Amino acid sequence: MSKSAMETAKAARLAFEASQSVSSEERSAALLAVRAELERQKEKVLEANKQDMDAAQDQVNAGTLSASLVKRLDLSSSEKWNSMLQGITDVANLPDPTGKVTYATKLDEGLELYRVTCPIGVLLVIFEARPEVVVNIASLAIKSGNAAILKGGKESSNSAKVLAGCIRTALSQSKLHEDYIQVVQTREEISGLLEQDKFIDLVIPRGSNALVSHIQHATRIPVMGHADGLCTVFLDETADPTKSCRVVLDSKVNYPAACNSAEILLVHSSILNTVWPRVASTLLSAKVELRCDERTLQSIPSTISSVNVKPSSTEDYNTEFLSLIMAVKAVDTFDEAVAFINAHSSHHTDAIVTESPQNGALFCRSIDSAGTFVNASTRFADGLRYGFGTEVGISTGRTHARGPVGLEGLVIYKYLLRSVDGQGHVVGEFGATPDKKRYRHEPIEATLPLDLSGR
Amino acid sequence: MSKSAMETAKAARLAFEASQSVSSEERSAALLAVRAELERQKEKVLEANKQDMDAAQDQVNAGTLSASLVKRLDLSSSEKWNSMLQGITDVANLPDPTGKVTYATKLDEGLELYRVTCPIGVLLVIFEARPEVVVNIASLAIKSGNAAILKGGKESSNSAKVLAGCIRTALSQSKLHEDYIQVVQTREEISGLLEQDKFIDLVIPRGSNALVSHIQHATRIPVMGHADGLCTVFLDETADPTKSCRVVLDSKVNYPAACNSAEILLVHSSILNTVWPRVASTLLSAKVELRCDERTLQSIPSTISSVNVKPSSTEDYNTEFLSLIMAVKAVDTFDEAVAFINAHSSHHTDAIVTESPQNGALFCRSIDSAGTFVNASTRFADGLRYGFGTEVGISTGRTHARGPVGLEGLVIYKYLLRSVDGQGHVVGEFGATPDKKRYRHEPIEATLPLDLSGR
Repeated sequence: MSKSAMETAKAARLAFEASQSVSSEERSAALLAVRAELERQKEKVLEANKQDMDAAQDQVNAGTLSASLVKRLDLSSSEKWNSMLQGITDVANLPDPTGKVTYATKLDEGLELYRVTCPIGVLLVIFEARPEVVVNIASLAIKSGNAAILKGGKESSNSAKVLAGCIRTALSQSKLHEDYIQVVQTREEISGLLEQDKFIDLVIPRGSNALVSHIQHATRIPVMGHADGLCTVFLDETADPTKSCRVVLDSKVNYPAACNSAEILLVHSSILNTVWPRVASTLLSAKVELRCDERTLQSIPSTISSVNVKPSSTEDYNTEFLSLIMAVKAVDTFDEAVAFINAHSSHHTDAIVTESPQNGALFCRSIDSAGTFVNASTRFADGLRYGFGTEVGISTGRTHARGPVGLEGLVIYKYLLRSVDGQGHVVGEFGATPDKKRYRHEPIEATLPLDLSGR
Repeated sequence: MSKSAMETAKAARLAFEASQSVSSEERSAALLAVRAELERQKEKVLEANKQDMDAAQDQVNAGTLSASLVKRLDLSSSEKWNSMLQGITDVANLPDPTGKVTYATKLDEGLELYRVTCPIGVLLVIFEARPEVVVNIASLAIKSGNAAILKGGKESSNSAKVLAGCIRTALSQSKLHEDYIQVVQTREEISGLLEQDKFIDLVIPRGSNALVSHIQHATRIPVMGHADGLCTVFLDETADPTKSCRVVLDSKVNYPAACNSAEILLVHSSILNTVWPRVASTLLSAKVELRCDERTLQSIPSTISSVNVKPSSTEDYNTEFLSLIMAVKAVDTFDEAVAFINAHSSHHTDAIVTESPQNGALFCRSIDSAGTFVNASTRFADGLRYGFGTEVGISTGRTHARGPVGLEGLVIYKYLLRSVDGQGHVVGEFGATPDKKRYRHEPIEATLPLDLSGR
C-alpha cells in the first residue's frame, strides 16, 4: 500500500511538471476548494485530532511527553480551526510570486530575453507536531506553484493523515494532480526521500538546530535551514538610556522562547556607570538573570538586588538560552563589538542602540547577519512584521533566501528567449568581425508579452 | 609553512568580515591595483607559466595528457594576456551588485525596513587548468565583495601561484586584506575545506558532472553546480522549414563542445515527410551524425546520403555527446514532446521551433528548464549573450541562481531596520487589541538613506 520513497518523489515531480500549465487563478481556486473540503470534513478531522490528543495525553500522564505539546496538537478550539481556514484564504489572496519579470532585454532586433520568476519544483518540508502546519505549508506550496511532500511530528500523524486526505480530495477536483501534496509519516520515509535529489529540489526542515544539521549532512538536495537564533544588542558610547532600556527589555522578554530574542548584551565601557545600571535594573525588575563579565558585574550598584546577577562563563556567550537569561559583556571599542558579534552571533539578527548615525550605518554594514537593526528590538525579525503576509521560516543560510522567508523564497526564475521575426535567431550570425551582428542588450519593458505569458 | 584547511577558511572569513566597511569604489580601486601589479610582474608570471607548459608538454609527449590542455595553459600570447588584463578593467567597470535596495517598507512612523543586496561571504571556487581563470574569478569576487579561496587544475599550479602572489601583493596595498583571495593547490586541501561550513558559504565547482556530483556528496556547504548540458530542440507541427534548419544547425554545430549545444532533436510526426528531410539534409551536410528512431530514420529519403545516419539506442537520448552527433526522435503530440523533454533534458536550455504563439507560450511554461527558447538557438544560453557583462558559470540547480550566472549570483541580501525617531521601537507596543499599534507596511522609496548607506 505505502509508496517507496522514490515513487513518492517521482509522483511529486510528475504532479509538479503537469502543473506548469495551470494558471495562477486555477491554483488559487484549488486553495479555496481545499478550504471548502476542510469545512465539510471538520468532524472527521477533529475525530482524528482527538485520537492524537488522547495518545499524547497518555504519554503526558506517563511522564514521557510535555504538556505543552498536547496544547499545540489541539485543533478543536474554534479560534484555532477558524484561523487555520482563514490562513488558506489569506494565502490565496496574496500576490502571485510567480510570473514576475525581473530582467528584460533585447539581444537583437526581434530577439527578446525575459527572466521570469517560477516555482522551484518539489519541496520536502519537515516540521513539528502541529497539525495546522500541514494546511499552512500546503497552502504556501499551492500558491507558489510548488509540489510538496510534508512530514509533521509523529504525535500529529492521525490529524495529518486526515488533513492530507481532505487536501488531496480537493486537489483531485481541481486542475492540480492529487499527488501535488503528499504527506509521509515515518523517519524511514524521510531517509529515503533525502536521497531523491533527482526529483526533490529543496528541503525545508523546521525545528531544532540538531534536526537541520542532521539533514544537511544526510542529503545532496539544497537545504533551507534555520540554525540557532543567537541575537545580540550592543549599546554604544552614545546610547540613549531610555532607548537602551526599551530595546534591550523588548528584545529579551517580549517572547524569550523565540529565535529572534536577544541572548547577549554588549555595553560600551564608557557607559558602564551611566546607562548600564539603568538597563540592568530594568532587566532585573523583569526577572531576567544576568550573567556578567567582570566589568559589567562590578558596575551594577550595590543598591540593586543582586540575586539574579551571576558571573558569566565563556559558554554563556555561545548559548541560545531561550529563557529569561542574558549574557552581558563590556567592550572598549566599536570594532571590538563588531568582531565579537561576527564571531559569536548566529547571523540571525543583531541590534545597536546609538545616537550616532555614523555608528548605525557602520554597524549595518559591518555586522554579517540577516538582520541589522538600529534602535529597534531584535523581535521585529519576522515575516509577518516585515510585511510578507506569511512566513515559510527564517533562514540563517546565505544563499537563495536569508532571514524571514515569505512566498518569494519559494520561487526561482527561468529565462524565456523568443525570436519574433526574421528567420529564427542563430548565434553564428553574431561576432566581432565587420560582417557579424553585435548584441544590443537594450532594456525592454519588463512585462511578458501576451503570447509568452500563456494567459 | 602551508596553512591547515581551517586556518585558510578562517583567514578568508576574517578578511571578508573586515571588508564589510570597504566601499564599492575602494574594491574597484583594488581591482585596478591588481591589474597594475600583473603588468609589473608579467615576466615572472610568464616564467612560471612556461614551467607549467613545459611540464604539460612532457606529459603530452609521453601520451598522458591531451595537447589541447597545453594550449589552454598558455598565457604568453599577447591576445590572451591582454584579454586577461582587460577582463579586470571590464569587471571593475560593471555596476556594483551590492547595496541595491530590493524591498523597502515603513513598519511604523519612524521605523523603516530595507532589504539590501550584500556579498554572500566566503566562496570556494574549483576550476579547470586555465590560469587566467584565477584572475577572472578573483576579479568577480573582489567586485561582488566576497572573499574567495581558489583551486585551479593541477597542471596550472605554478602559474596560479605567481598570479595569486601578484593579486595578494596588490591587495595588501589596498583596503582589503591580502587573505581576501587565497589559492590552494592540492586535492587534500579541498577535502579539508569542504568541511569548513562554519567559514565557507558557497562552493562553486566548474568542471565535469562527476566533479560537481562528488562535491555535492562531500559537503554541507551549499553548492552552485553545473550538471550536464543535455539540450533539446523540438520542431512542432507548424515549424517553418527555414527556421528549423537554421535553429537546429546552429544549436548543434556552432560549438558542439559547449554545454548549451543541442544533443536531441524531437520532430512532430506530421512533418516527418516535409520539414524533417530538409533539416536532416542540412545536418548531414554539416557532417553531423544522426542517431534516429525508426520513424525519423525511415523518413529520410533515399536520395540523401545515409552514411552518417544510424538507428538510435535508448542511451542516445540521455547522452551529452559534446560532438557532431544528434539523437533524433518523432513525437505524435505537443504533450509527448514536453513530457519527453522534462524527463530527459538536464533542465539547462530547450528550444521549440513553431509558428504558433500558443505553442511557444505553452512550451515556455511547461518545460522545466533554466532556458526555454522560441525559434532561437540553444547556444544563446550564455551570460555574456544575456548581457550580464561576465559569467561566473551556468547553474543547473533550482535554488539561489539558475542558468547563466552573472555578478548577481554572487550576492544575497540582508535586512536593515532603523528607528529614526521616538524612543526606540519595540514589538510589545504592537498587537490586535485597541490599545496597541498596528503595522503599517507602507512602501517607501527603495533608496538607502545616507545615514544607513555609510557613504
